[in-house]
Amino acid sequence: MNCAILGYGTVGTGVYKLLTDKEKDIFQKSGSNIRVKWVYDRSFRRIKDYPLPSEVCTKDPDVIFNDPDVHCVIELIGGIEPARTFIFNAIRKGKHVVTANKAVLSASGPEIWKEAESNGVLLGYEASVGGGVPVIKTVKESLVGNRISTIVGIMNGTANYILSRMTKERKDYHEILKDAQRLGYAEADPTFDVEGYDTAHKLAILSMLTFGQKFTQDDIYTEGITRIAPLDIDFAKELGYRVKLLAIGRLNDDGVMLRVHPTMIPDTHLLAQVDGAFNAFYFVGDEIGKMLLYGMGAGQGPTASAVVSDLVDIARLKGHCSMKPLQTKVLSKASLKKVPVASLNSRYYFRFSAVDRPGVLAKISGILGEYGISIQSVVQKGRKEKGAVPIVMLTHEACEENVCQALKKIDSLDVTMEKTVLIRIEDLSALE
Amino acid sequence: MNCAILGYGTVGTGVYKLLTDKEKDIFQKSGSNIRVKWVYDRSFRRIKDYPLPSEVCTKDPDVIFNDPDVHCVIELIGGIEPARTFIFNAIRKGKHVVTANKAVLSASGPEIWKEAESNGVLLGYEASVGGGVPVIKTVKESLVGNRISTIVGIMNGTANYILSRMTKERKDYHEILKDAQRLGYAEADPTFDVEGYDTAHKLAILSMLTFGQKFTQDDIYTEGITRIAPLDIDFAKELGYRVKLLAIGRLNDDGVMLRVHPTMIPDTHLLAQVDGAFNAFYFVGDEIGKMLLYGMGAGQGPTASAVVSDLVDIARLKGHCSMKPLQTKVLSKASLKKVPVASLNSRYYFRFSAVDRPGVLAKISGILGEYGISIQSVVQKGRKEKGAVPIVMLTHEACEENVCQALKKIDSLDVTMEKTVLIRIEDLSALE
Repeated sequence: MNCAILGYGTVGTGVYKLLTDKEKDIFQKSGSNIRVKWVYDRSFRRIKDYPLPSEVCTKDPDVIFNDPDVHCVIELIGGIEPARTFIFNAIRKGKHVVTANKAVLSASGPEIWKEAESNGVLLGYEASVGGGVPVIKTVKESLVGNRISTIVGIMNGTANYILSRMTKERKDYHEILKDAQRLGYAEADPTFDVEGYDTAHKLAILSMLTFGQKFTQDDIYTEGITRIAPLDIDFAKELGYRVKLLAIGRLNDDGVMLRVHPTMIPDTHLLAQVDGAFNAFYFVGDEIGKMLLYGMGAGQGPTASAVVSDLVDIARLKGHCSMKPLQTKVLSKASLKKVPVASLNSRYYFRFSAVDRPGVLAKISGILGEYGISIQSVVQKGRKEKGAVPIVMLTHEACEENVCQALKKIDSLDVTMEKTVLIRIEDLSALE
Repeated sequence: MNCAILGYGTVGTGVYKLLTDKEKDIFQKSGSNIRVKWVYDRSFRRIKDYPLPSEVCTKDPDVIFNDPDVHCVIELIGGIEPARTFIFNAIRKGKHVVTANKAVLSASGPEIWKEAESNGVLLGYEASVGGGVPVIKTVKESLVGNRISTIVGIMNGTANYILSRMTKERKDYHEILKDAQRLGYAEADPTFDVEGYDTAHKLAILSMLTFGQKFTQDDIYTEGITRIAPLDIDFAKELGYRVKLLAIGRLNDDGVMLRVHPTMIPDTHLLAQVDGAFNAFYFVGDEIGKMLLYGMGAGQGPTASAVVSDLVDIARLKGHCSMKPLQTKVLSKASLKKVPVASLNSRYYFRFSAVDRPGVLAKISGILGEYGISIQSVVQKGRKEKGAVPIVMLTHEACEENVCQALKKIDSLDVTMEKTVLIRIEDLSALE
């Protein structure tokens, strides 16, 4: 399948890079060969970040629309114009379109969907909401059997980043904003993010898909985070709440209410745990109950990931590849080594059941030492349980094989009463 | 599209009910008419829960396999045999298959995928892992552009329910298990769930899709939760950890290590917040970074929801409906009322900036009273901020329109210095 990328900014370079670097991967997984034939940009200022062969570059978008060999146009310009015109041009020329443009879709989604339908082309827009989080696909495909009553989301990474830092650091909005701008988490003009407009765009798109009728910005009550003071966050904390900029879409017997505003939510709720630049989407459906999707809602990698998933879907549906959706490839011959758990390196929690006698701890720790297992801390609570005393130990990182051997030896001592309980400790950040 | 359901148990009745009750809904959303032509069951014991027309019932599965008018077979029997034979029979008769069967797929997935491919039929198995959580679709479609290095999941609701209650109530495993059995959260023979086998089946399926080669139970180190004592959970808590039964699949330079075991994880991690019968799937991909999917991993509604999403996908792909995947229907004329935020009923947080003078609080609360806004609590911290004192109030549920009018009046008082800060409080459980 031949594609053309419109807009070679952060996301454009990300998509080009992903398609180029992972050509083989994507072919293996999906049977599709996705080739970038053209890249359009007005200035190509970002070409130094990721160079392009000169023959794919064009500053004339009509070259792309008039090329019968282009099957799919990827619109990554953003904003309303000229993006909207480009999308319509591509559709009318019979090209499939993938876009990350929430502004255009929230303003003109239904018109674009209709145009695509009457021209027999497909339109992918997974990247328009939630970055790499598959929220569009989930609503459109996975939840098709549900009546969804509630959407609640943290849909803007910048606003959530600022509120999270205000909560942790007890600093003023303006101070954190400045720092966020310095670190690249906020734009020079942050209005769009902090006043809730970006969130409202995304809520409009999700509401159209969920509730099945047109909604625009005007249907959404929108309020930003700029008036929230450290004082408010402190009070919220004291009362067991967190302050989040939420998008809320709610269907009940009266109708649909859509709103975006700072909200105090119980600090025990999963949404309250969504910190930093992360997004989260919470749905309530009559079949599935509660569901939450969480991930990076913006950025080069996540957005490119969503764009590429749309491209592969189109390639599969339009026969540009050897594998249809819902097919699972017969797996290639094993090439990855299967690593046994014996070679795991982990931290461990041990609970020994030992007799309450002097020297027991020395015996146990001696054996651990023999096997190179170093102890981080020991707790001996002294609570007697049928003659045995629990001794709890945390280890530094050790090898599972050594641990097994050491415990075998310890469990055979006459001072231990029961088989030692072992629980592996995962500092989950090590798995990232 | 004509379907046949094999197995009329909890999930079978759920699927039949969903397809019957929501026929119009599903047609509106996807353009597909999914009709159940046959239901096979050995005994039809559950027919009293949801009655079936007698002409759809059969106790002879061959009636289904030999009916050329059946396009898709939905296997909901569970266990290895006769489910596996039925799946192969259906495929060889050219029928698409949707299954919720994790045991068969983890044992024979690649053989079934191959058989489906060579017979040109589609195979949906979203319901085999994570119930209503779209984890299969996410791995296969949404993350196609990613190299996934890590899968960590809470994949068994029973085990997580028991551990969650042990954590909250400080009770013994056996005591909670008994209660879980009484409440229907655990089977009479809970071995499969509590010893980690069910989790290992799901990890095998996800690992095959993620890492692209065959894995079976034998490749997964598996350990259950039966030896965890309240003592261990207490120590974990003290140390800032939670104990969860995790499935962990990890790819690094050495190869792939797959394991299922009780694990201590930092209590600040999202996975530590997943309580009760919920499931969660955590992925790390090179483009998307961290992603988490959360929801009900079992039960009638969630499983039926997943089965129906597969059915609609097949109907769309095979032309049994008017709308292709990636098409968004032009939305029907607005039928839902758009409810303005003015009619919201909510609890509110107010921060007034008032002069520090007797009688101010009485004035403010008097106005609130006029508008029927009743105060839950007041905090006056006495910290002076440039002459103004912050007065913080939480209200009981009140109507937004009244709140706006009251605040307008309050803000025009000469004892208030700045516009009142208002934050809506969502007790999220009210949105469910």
